Amino acid sequence: MNDYTPTRADKFSFGLWTVGFRGADPFGAATRPELDPVEAVHRLSDLGAWGITFHDDDLFGFGATESERSRILSRFRSALDTTGLVVPMITTNLFGHPVFKDGALTANDRDVRRFALRKMLRNVELAAELGAKTFVAWGGREGAETDAAKDIRVALDRYKEGIDLVCAFIRDRGYDLRLALEPKPNEPRGDILLPTVGHALAFIEQLEHPDMVGVNPETGHEQMAGLNYVHGIAQALWAGKLFHLDLNGQHGAKFDQDLRFGAGDVKNAFFTVDLLEQAGYAGPRHFDFKPPRTENDDGVWASAAGGMRNYLILKERAAAFRADPRVQQAREATRASELAQATMASGEKPEDLLTSGDDFDPEAAATRGMHYETLDQLALEHLMGLH
Amino acid sequence: MNDYTPTRADKFSFGLWTVGFRGADPFGAATRPELDPVEAVHRLSDLGAWGITFHDDDLFGFGATESERSRILSRFRSALDTTGLVVPMITTNLFGHPVFKDGALTANDRDVRRFALRKMLRNVELAAELGAKTFVAWGGREGAETDAAKDIRVALDRYKEGIDLVCAFIRDRGYDLRLALEPKPNEPRGDILLPTVGHALAFIEQLEHPDMVGVNPETGHEQMAGLNYVHGIAQALWAGKLFHLDLNGQHGAKFDQDLRFGAGDVKNAFFTVDLLEQAGYAGPRHFDFKPPRTENDDGVWASAAGGMRNYLILKERAAAFRADPRVQQAREATRASELAQATMASGEKPEDLLTSGDDFDPEAAATRGMHYETLDQLALEHLMGLH
Amino acid sequence: MNDYTPTRADKFSFGLWTVGFRGADPFGAATRPELDPVEAVHRLSDLGAWGITFHDDDLFGFGATESERSRILSRFRSALDTTGLVVPMITTNLFGHPVFKDGALTANDRDVRRFALRKMLRNVELAAELGAKTFVAWGGREGAETDAAKDIRVALDRYKEGIDLVCAFIRDRGYDLRLALEPKPNEPRGDILLPTVGHALAFIEQLEHPDMVGVNPETGHEQMAGLNYVHGIAQALWAGKLFHLDLNGQHGAKFDQDLRFGAGDVKNAFFTVDLLEQAGYAGPRHFDFKPPRTENDDGVWASAAGGMRNYLILKERAAAFRADPRVQQAREATRASELAQATMASGEKPEDLLTSGDDFDPEAAATRGMHYETLDQLALEHLMGLH
Amino acid sequence: MNDYTPTRADKFSFGLWTVGFRGADPFGAATRPELDPVEAVHRLSDLGAWGITFHDDDLFGFGATESERSRILSRFRSALDTTGLVVPMITTNLFGHPVFKDGALTANDRDVRRFALRKMLRNVELAAELGAKTFVAWGGREGAETDAAKDIRVALDRYKEGIDLVCAFIRDRGYDLRLALEPKPNEPRGDILLPTVGHALAFIEQLEHPDMVGVNPETGHEQMAGLNYVHGIAQALWAGKLFHLDLNGQHGAKFDQDLRFGAGDVKNAFFTVDLLEQAGYAGPRHFDFKPPRTENDDGVWASAAGGMRNYLILKERAAAFRADPRVQQAREATRASELAQATMASGEKPEDLLTSGDDFDPEAAATRGMHYETLDQLALEHLMGLH
Repeated sequence: MNDYTPTRADKFSFGLWTVGFRGADPFGAATRPELDPVEAVHRLSDLGAWGITFHDDDLFGFGATESERSRILSRFRSALDTTGLVVPMITTNLFGHPVFKDGALTANDRDVRRFALRKMLRNVELAAELGAKTFVAWGGREGAETDAAKDIRVALDRYKEGIDLVCAFIRDRGYDLRLALEPKPNEPRGDILLPTVGHALAFIEQLEHPDMVGVNPETGHEQMAGLNYVHGIAQALWAGKLFHLDLNGQHGAKFDQDLRFGAGDVKNAFFTVDLLEQAGYAGPRHFDFKPPRTENDDGVWASAAGGMRNYLILKERAAAFRADPRVQQAREATRASELAQATMASGEKPEDLLTSGDDFDPEAAATRGMHYETLDQLALEHLMGLH
Repeated sequence: MNDYTPTRADKFSFGLWTVGFRGADPFGAATRPELDPVEAVHRLSDLGAWGITFHDDDLFGFGATESERSRILSRFRSALDTTGLVVPMITTNLFGHPVFKDGALTANDRDVRRFALRKMLRNVELAAELGAKTFVAWGGREGAETDAAKDIRVALDRYKEGIDLVCAFIRDRGYDLRLALEPKPNEPRGDILLPTVGHALAFIEQLEHPDMVGVNPETGHEQMAGLNYVHGIAQALWAGKLFHLDLNGQHGAKFDQDLRFGAGDVKNAFFTVDLLEQAGYAGPRHFDFKPPRTENDDGVWASAAGGMRNYLILKERAAAFRADPRVQQAREATRASELAQATMASGEKPEDLLTSGDDFDPEAAATRGMHYETLDQLALEHLMGLH
Repeated sequence: MNDYTPTRADKFSFGLWTVGFRGADPFGAATRPELDPVEAVHRLSDLGAWGITFHDDDLFGFGATESERSRILSRFRSALDTTGLVVPMITTNLFGHPVFKDGALTANDRDVRRFALRKMLRNVELAAELGAKTFVAWGGREGAETDAAKDIRVALDRYKEGIDLVCAFIRDRGYDLRLALEPKPNEPRGDILLPTVGHALAFIEQLEHPDMVGVNPETGHEQMAGLNYVHGIAQALWAGKLFHLDLNGQHGAKFDQDLRFGAGDVKNAFFTVDLLEQAGYAGPRHFDFKPPRTENDDGVWASAAGGMRNYLILKERAAAFRADPRVQQAREATRASELAQATMASGEKPEDLLTSGDDFDPEAAATRGMHYETLDQLALEHLMGLH
Repeated sequence: MNDYTPTRADKFSFGLWTVGFRGADPFGAATRPELDPVEAVHRLSDLGAWGITFHDDDLFGFGATESERSRILSRFRSALDTTGLVVPMITTNLFGHPVFKDGALTANDRDVRRFALRKMLRNVELAAELGAKTFVAWGGREGAETDAAKDIRVALDRYKEGIDLVCAFIRDRGYDLRLALEPKPNEPRGDILLPTVGHALAFIEQLEHPDMVGVNPETGHEQMAGLNYVHGIAQALWAGKLFHLDLNGQHGAKFDQDLRFGAGDVKNAFFTVDLLEQAGYAGPRHFDFKPPRTENDDGVWASAAGGMRNYLILKERAAAFRADPRVQQAREATRASELAQATMASGEKPEDLLTSGDDFDPEAAATRGMHYETLDQLALEHLMGLH
């Protein structure tokens, strides 16, 4: 019997800033004390997690001296060694300090952009040092509150310059590291550049080294724009660009809730897991959530454990859904397999197509039912553990 | 004195389906009689429009015979000849007939996909015959209501196959025609493939002939996802992909309102015009709106005239905004010109950057104000005709 | 073992317009043939439904003659008699015909308002004749696309006048019938009057006979405004005003999807059922959904059956959730029972409170965890059938 | 010539927390230093404001001792005396301190509720002492992230108990003070109780002293739910409950932006001002905005000045719109005046109506145009200063 206990093989990872979230929000102060990163490592390990990730400032604090960094890092690495937790991803905080209030790679002030890039490069060095394979870049401050503020085309030039530079640095150093851009439509900026998975994928194609850069889609970020997260990661997979992902929960078009995975639209979460497992996605299952500020320490860890547990439950449910003969039959009724067939015959030319088809009767074809309601109901029932 | 009267030089074009919209909606029947396409041509010409566009079914009706098509086309061309109106764009109705209920290029039924492609190819022939330079493809039925319905990756394979085929046909025939994909997040499908400008731009990069394909962003479609339309077209321009656009109005995340241009978020409309004019966008200013069903014939033409008039008013206002010395001074205070400077010095390498910058004081830099409020207020006042 | 087969005791009712929905939408024509109301009665009865509801025009068509009405009604009543299905609710179509394009009770044209009211009164007579206890009023056309159109205060005067008149008529005739206003934020109008449960509840308090009027909240209508449906019906219950309700599914702030119950946010559906059952809500469980236009007849009935089945599954799950000792313990940890205690002591005055409490330490109190994450995870697991 | 310089007669008031906003947000630290309340008074007075408002904690800080309060208040009153600024409204901070993380009047913990009420009562005393006539209550922490957390009906019982208590206190003391509840759909809680103007109006009717309590609608709060602010305040006015209001700007369904008034949907702002002036609203024009954190001190005051200036510009424009004979003619064409006529004739009974109207032809009536497009275009042009 499955008890949904995570193992390292599940590749669950957590941001240090997630379990370490202290609960401050725009209207209220922190409700929890600071969490020692070493404790985070041990607690996550005990819960069955595989990896931990962080922004530079999560670990060191902004402006730490070299000796402080060295001391903190040494302690942290010991905890990693003791527990066996890995650091599969690192990211840079280019949004918290007031110096980034107008952006980092696209700040109007050139010296701010240069400072931001130096901060990234230093962090790339750290990523390589810690063996991380993915370097996430969330440009949360790249954007504007008013359309008077920036010529977006010029801002994109700077954005590209910055990402190209980081790629060049990685190549120069010979690091085994890929970048993953994280899209978000808004908050903290009124409008953020690269607001969706689509915009980020499109941007990547304009880079010097598009092969080095993919996306890091976050459940709630797509859902804040009313977009379907499953569609978003599917398009990223289709483009070979799902380098990393952030799993959490959200209730539609409102502020960024960062609920634990499964706690928002659980049916979409079911299909998220189904897609990842079907697609053979081999990367981390990374949780980027914020335990609600109503919670004390107990709630933080209940929330962390819940996200992993939900993934495993949904994975089991999705597998049962796929294996169920009734589901297979219902799917066959939707002619899903026909979608996998090429539309054109082998060797068929446009002109051939144009002159074919006189016997197709659109009125008759229109009467065929698609039978999606039956299939969707079966999915829902599998989610609810009925079959 | 400017009386905001459109001329052909303004390149205003209208969909036949816009002024011809009869007012049916999900909860009510048509409120207006059919509009004769010939009358549409004459009325639009009288109002100062430059072009008219259409879906095949707008002009001919679905399933018209060859002789019907020929007769209708002949009458329509006479009206074009008489008035001098051009047909800069044509598009295919792949959504109205029940046969397309599961999609056209991505329908599960292969014969439906083939039928849809034949319909497109025939329409491409017509586009070439009429001298249209842009062929818009809105895949409004490509999508799903449930995530159980489709493997989105497979659907994108079929989507790509279809668009590649149309491109091949255009090349085979030697037509001077480009495709423009029109994104929309939802409605009529629960989720539509290529939901935003970003997703469409990303998709294009996966095609056989990406150079032949651009986007046709619609104001309201981006705003339905809470996205900033100005940002969307800016990224399209930046990628060299703004082949066409649909101007209208919308009030945020709700059903597709298709208000006349200027009637939704007028400040965003101001910056839309500002961007198009600044960028030297040379394509049609195409209106894709629906005169509200409360209106009779008078309202239809008032609505059509209003859209053009608003464009011209906003164009004047945006030019005045740009020319105003106070604006230029306020913009300078935002250090906008620094954004246009490369972040890296000429010849500077990543390693150089890493070791530079010891004299940068983030605390001091953080105290600089960006002065966007002043600039934004000036923009708003120019919109309101104050300066 | 529960097989989730509905019985009359479950009080499931369906709108004739739901199973009869033919699939037309703003971008496409109907995909299904007309459904004979008599067949609808029989099919719903076979599926285990208890009641059927309708708009006058669903049954008779707009403008039917007396003899047509009589003939149709006779046939329909026979089907009711044969099957035992009841008609617990009737409503009036004041939105479909073009005459209502500017509203019905709040149309600018006085003769349209009078026509609308006559149509309502005739339908009230029918409701009484058929033994319906609830008369739903959805003012889908009461609203505007532009703020220039109406003085909303004046429109509310007319709205009140109309509803007061219907109440007076019911009292004059001595009918045993209550009104239920159905809120919706938008679609088909840009903004609809009484956009949420709250606005409708507030409006009712301004009526002549507030006791005769309650609300009919629809899942998707509240969710289109990003509001929590459970909160909405809870406030209606709290005010003693939940006279009827419309269960369906929706994916957030977009067009009105009218998915089957359970198919949108299933966790909110779980808590909807939990609340209704906890509160002892004795009214109909009424489904107001639209089988997707991809579906043929099979899908229509699969969709209808699915909604009932989902209610019964969720009812079982919610009961198990309530009964689970771990849940009870987890709830106790949230101090939920303290919320049910009066804040003031018996006889305590404001001045007493003001001078009490010197020993309360906010810093200490702030450290208590609320333990909601644990409780929420248990709810999710019960929804998924784990316990 | 109008230079849009505010005077005391304009009754512009500002929250101390608005100009004092330091720029912290969920992803970044404060970018501006603290603002001395005394400086705020002087600066606002210099800009032409009439009043200043505050939360207790804005002025004193949470947990200030009696002597600190006394000293701070004395300094503050001196500034008021010097400048002539008034304090028309006071409100209580029941959201910032961690003790309120689960709510204040509806916190599960009874001692927290009692603490919150004591804090309110003390603040009511202060309001009376300072001559404020309105006491705003924003229950930003009353709500939940999960439907498992609270029985909303029980929470509303406690909410009512709390507000009733405050009213009783005001009556006991004989203060000349009214309460104004401020609705908000979400943020900081996942769902907030009394999410819209409608819900608050409905709640008020359940109170012991509904006459003492009205609403304080905020532009952005309604717009976050996709609702029309003009409709919201119109319903509040219609119910006699617009006791106060918060003017600002927002871009639709996303996080709470608190832009300056005019900076979001300026056309809705135009109609907001038009309605307030038409309705003879005599209360404060209160600005509740947050100067973007990109701004330094210059931007803060530019933002504050801009909001007042926009109100005055829009007031002039709305007056010109009303006075324009073309507008009057266009409005007459919409039959707006007919909406002001009673639908029923004097003395007419429901039965009379039922038997009247045989000569009404819905088909003919349906052909009448409403001419809203013309009127809306004129409004837009007046907003843009064209006439």
